Amino acid sequence: MVTIQTGNSVVTLINVFTVEPENQQKVVEMLIEATEKTMKNLPGFVSASIHKSLDGVRVTNYAHWRKREDFEAMLKNPEATAHMKPITEIATFDAHLYEVVESIST
Amino acid sequence: MVTIQTGNSVVTLINVFTVEPENQQKVVEMLIEATEKTMKNLPGFVSASIHKSLDGVRVTNYAHWRKREDFEAMLKNPEATAHMKPITEIATFDAHLYEVVESIST
Repeated sequence: MVTIQTGNSVVTLINVFTVEPENQQKVVEMLIEATEKTMKNLPGFVSASIHKSLDGVRVTNYAHWRKREDFEAMLKNPEATAHMKPITEIATFDAHLYEVVESIST
Repeated sequence: MVTIQTGNSVVTLINVFTVEPENQQKVVEMLIEATEKTMKNLPGFVSASIHKSLDGVRVTNYAHWRKREDFEAMLKNPEATAHMKPITEIATFDAHLYEVVESIST
């Protein structure tokens, strides 16, 4: 189970892909395949949660990595970049690493 | 505790604010205040998790609402919009509602 909490036990990647609605499901499937076949086997991978927007124009990956260096090593991994290349041909993306500042629940 | 899981028990809002680094902490504080004073008391609010990017240029709210209609009612609530107005004077935002398609953990 993926949990969101403050503290620095993991680093959070939020990567927002902008897509045409006709490509949304394809990008979802490509991200799941990339995660299952490659990302989850890389050092420091903790979790990836793939979200699709109800309006059809975004796919967002909310992921946890053990630390920033693990994420940066993934960016240089040839198998990982081979998965990402066809995705970037049908989507643009905005990826940033985050820390959780506050989590407020009812 | 906030958890990410598939299924339609809640709807997920991911709202990515683009900020100048000198305004990042201010936007974080304004979102926390808006959540504590107003959002958490509105019907259907479940949780809000405020994230700040390590590079200083994004603040992202990852929030759960019971259903889409609750989120849409919040957008029309005068107290909620009064909180959001000054934030939009120092940040742009990209807000979408999502469902979780897949969550993969090690």
